[in-house]
Amino acid sequence: MKPSIPKGTRDFLPLEVARRNWMFDIIETVFRKFGYVPIETPVLENLSTLTGKYGEEGDRLLFKVLNNGEYLEKADDDAYQRKDSAAFTPSISKRGMRYDLTVPFARYVVMHRNEISLPFKRYQIQPVWRADRPQKGRYQEFYQCDVDVVGSKSVSYEAELVQIYDEVFAELGIPVVIRINHRQLLSGMATYAGIGDKWMDMTIALDKLDKIGEEGVRNEMTAKRIDTAAQDKIFGLLKHDTIEQMRADMQTEPTSAASLDDLDAVFNYLKGLSLTNELKFDATLARGLGYYTGCIFEVTAVDAEMGSLGGGGRYDDLTGVFGWSGVPGVGISFGAERIFDVLEAKNLFPASVQAGPVIMLAAMDEASHRYAFQCVSTLRQAGIAADLYPDPVKLSKQLKYASDIGCRYAGIVGESEMQDQTVMVKDLQSGEQESKQIQALIDHLTG
Amino acid sequence: MKPSIPKGTRDFLPLEVARRNWMFDIIETVFRKFGYVPIETPVLENLSTLTGKYGEEGDRLLFKVLNNGEYLEKADDDAYQRKDSAAFTPSISKRGMRYDLTVPFARYVVMHRNEISLPFKRYQIQPVWRADRPQKGRYQEFYQCDVDVVGSKSVSYEAELVQIYDEVFAELGIPVVIRINHRQLLSGMATYAGIGDKWMDMTIALDKLDKIGEEGVRNEMTAKRIDTAAQDKIFGLLKHDTIEQMRADMQTEPTSAASLDDLDAVFNYLKGLSLTNELKFDATLARGLGYYTGCIFEVTAVDAEMGSLGGGGRYDDLTGVFGWSGVPGVGISFGAERIFDVLEAKNLFPASVQAGPVIMLAAMDEASHRYAFQCVSTLRQAGIAADLYPDPVKLSKQLKYASDIGCRYAGIVGESEMQDQTVMVKDLQSGEQESKQIQALIDHLTG
Repeated sequence: MKPSIPKGTRDFLPLEVARRNWMFDIIETVFRKFGYVPIETPVLENLSTLTGKYGEEGDRLLFKVLNNGEYLEKADDDAYQRKDSAAFTPSISKRGMRYDLTVPFARYVVMHRNEISLPFKRYQIQPVWRADRPQKGRYQEFYQCDVDVVGSKSVSYEAELVQIYDEVFAELGIPVVIRINHRQLLSGMATYAGIGDKWMDMTIALDKLDKIGEEGVRNEMTAKRIDTAAQDKIFGLLKHDTIEQMRADMQTEPTSAASLDDLDAVFNYLKGLSLTNELKFDATLARGLGYYTGCIFEVTAVDAEMGSLGGGGRYDDLTGVFGWSGVPGVGISFGAERIFDVLEAKNLFPASVQAGPVIMLAAMDEASHRYAFQCVSTLRQAGIAADLYPDPVKLSKQLKYASDIGCRYAGIVGESEMQDQTVMVKDLQSGEQESKQIQALIDHLTG
Repeated sequence: MKPSIPKGTRDFLPLEVARRNWMFDIIETVFRKFGYVPIETPVLENLSTLTGKYGEEGDRLLFKVLNNGEYLEKADDDAYQRKDSAAFTPSISKRGMRYDLTVPFARYVVMHRNEISLPFKRYQIQPVWRADRPQKGRYQEFYQCDVDVVGSKSVSYEAELVQIYDEVFAELGIPVVIRINHRQLLSGMATYAGIGDKWMDMTIALDKLDKIGEEGVRNEMTAKRIDTAAQDKIFGLLKHDTIEQMRADMQTEPTSAASLDDLDAVFNYLKGLSLTNELKFDATLARGLGYYTGCIFEVTAVDAEMGSLGGGGRYDDLTGVFGWSGVPGVGISFGAERIFDVLEAKNLFPASVQAGPVIMLAAMDEASHRYAFQCVSTLRQAGIAADLYPDPVKLSKQLKYASDIGCRYAGIVGESEMQDQTVMVKDLQSGEQESKQIQALIDHLTG
C-alpha cells in the first residue's frame, strides 16, 4: 500500500519543527515574562462541552469520535432509518476533538476554580481540529495560540497585551500595526449619528473601509437605510485621529464616554514606554462583535499581504455557559500558522535555527572509528550537538551525509589524528580545514 | 451544566505543565546533542494506515473519527442490521487517532524517503490515544517519547542509545539500571540447551526470574516440557556475569556468536567513557520478541517500585508494511508518564521550576499604579518574569495573590517609592524587606 495522510493534515520535517519551535519559544518567553502561565487541556472533550458553542456551522465542523466497543447497541434506530446523520451522531459518539482554545479554557476555569487564583493569567498553545474544506494555508489540524487574563476588569491588562503583541512581533522581526478600538465606541458613534438601532450595520460597513473606500461604505450604508446626514456625522468623526478630538465631538453622546476613558487609559499606561511597532486607534475596527464588550484589537503586518496576524478583545462573561456568570476577561490570540507563513515567505529564521547537529565526525577506518566515538562523546559532554557517521566508509559519502543533515562542520579522524589526539576540522561552507585538539574544537564551537 | 472531561483524559495545571516541560526539555536536549532531530506527525491518520498494525486488541482500542457531513449516506446497511459495530465502522469512519509513534514514523519514512537522509536519526514526543480502561497511572490520552535511527546496522548506535538513557536519567536525578540483552542470544541459549524449538517458552519463563525465582522458572519450564537437563544447561549459562564467560561456554553453539559480538561491541564502544548509571548484561531480559531482532534494552529505577521506565531494541524491517522492505533500525522509548510519576513521588523537580513570575509589584494608590506599570515594564525588558497586581487594592490582598501564584518576591510601590524611584522588595519566604533602586532589583533577580 502507498501510505498517505488525511487531507488538511501535515507531517513536519525536522527543519520545520525546529523553526516552528523557534517561533513558539519566542512567543512563550514573552508570555512568561508578562506573568502568564501555561495550561493544557485534552484533545478529547465531551461533546456536551463543545456542542452549541460554535453555532450551527461549528457543530457541523466538529470532529466527533466514535464510541468504543459495541456502540451500535445504543444507536438511534429512528434517526438511522431517516438517514439523519446529525440526529444519529449523539447516539454513537459522546466525545469530540478540541475545536478552539476558548471553550476548553472556560470549562477549565470552572472545573478548577478552587485551584486557580483570580486574576488568572493563562496562555495555551495547542492544536485544534476543524472539518473545514482544506485549502492553501488552511488546515483541518492546526495550532492556536491564546493568551488571556480572566477575573479582572482592569484596563492595565489591555495595555499589557499591547506590549505583548509589540514585543513578540519585534522579536520575530515582523513589523506590524496594532490597531485598537472599543465595542462601546462603535455603538456610541451610531447613537451620536442618530442610528443607534443600526450600529451593527454601520460597523459591518465601516469594517470594509480599507477595501472599498468611503464611497463604497456610503453606498452600503445607504442600502441599509442609513441616511446621508448620519453618514456625514459618522465620517466627520472618522476624520479624528486622536481620542481627544473624538471626545470633544461626542460630548453630546454620553454613552461613549466610558469607552473613550478605557482607550485613554490604555494609551496612558503606555506613555513613556517605547513600542517597536505602531499602536493605532482605529474607530473603524470591528471584531467579534457578538462576543467582545470592551477594547478590541487587531494586528496586521505592515508590508505583507497576509491580512490579520492576530486579534482579541475584552469580554464580560467567559464562563456563564458553564454555570459561573460574571467572569470578565481580556485576551488576544496569535495566528500561529499565518505568522509562520510570513516568517517563511520573508525568510526571517536565523541561520542558527537548525534541527541537526553542528558537526559530524567521519572516521577513516575501524580503529579510528572507536577513537571518533570517544571524541564525539567528549563534544556532547561539552554540550555540543554532534554526530558520528556510523561506519568508516568512503570519506566523500560521509561528508555528503554531513552536509545533507545540515552540519556546518565535519571532523575527519584517521590514523594520524588518533596518534596526535586531534581532529581535522573541515568547514563545509568555506571548504577550509584545520587540525585541532579536541579542547580547541570545543572552544571554537562553544565560543 | 456541570462541565467535565472524558475519563482517561487530563487537564494540566500551570505547575504541572512547567514540570512536564522541564522533563521533556531535558530529554530533548540530550536527543539533540546526540544528533537526533524532531519530527511531528498529525493526530489524525487514515484508518488504512493504522488498522491491522496493532493486533486485534489494538484495532479495538483505536479511537475512530466519524466522517463529516451526511455520512449515513454511505453507511453499511447490512452491518447495521446485524448490529455488527466492527463491520459497520469502516463505512462511517475513515480516520483514526494516533495510537503510537512507531507506525506513523514508518509511514513518515516511506512518504518522505526523498526528503530525508539515511541513517535518519529522529525523535518524536507527542500524545497518543488508546481506548484502554483508565486506571491509576493509565490514561486514554498520554505522551510517548521515542528516539530511533533507521537505515543503518551499526552497533555504534546501540552504544549511543545507552549513553542517551544514561545521561537523561542522570540529569533527571533518577538512578537506574540499564539492562541489555540480544534477541539472537536467547534463541542461541535454547539451541545450546537442545530446546531450540522452545526458545519462546524458555524466554517467557526466564523473563519472570526476578519475580518467581529459579524454582518458579524451573516449574514453568517443566510445564512447557523443557526437561531438567536443558534447565540445568540454561541455568548454568545464567551463572555467567560477563559476555566472555558466556562465549566460552557456548562455543559449541555457533549461531549465538554474532549476538555476543554485538554485545561485545556495545561494551567496547563505551569503554573508557564513564556512565553515571549501571549498564548490565542480563541474559534473562526479554522484550518485544516478535519485533526486535538484535540488541534489546530495558531501564528500571534502582529504588522505585515503578517497573520499567523505558525500553527498546534493534529491528530488521521498519517499513516493509508500507512497501519499503529492508530498512533496519534501533530505537528506545521513554515512559514519559511513568517517569513523571517517579519525579513527583520523589520530589525531584528543582524549586526554580515554576510556572509563574518571580516577582509581583503591588501599588498603594492609582498614581503609584502608573509608576508600578513602568517599573514592571522595565523588569520585563530585563528578561525577568514579573507581574503587577491590576488594581491598588488592600495590600494584604495583593500580597496573598503574589504568594498564591508562586512569586518569591513582592515589590511594594507607594508615594515615597515613586518619589525616590525605588521599590520596596519583600521576600515572601523570609518576610524580609528592603528598599531597592530598579537597577539594583534587576541585578538581584538576574544575578
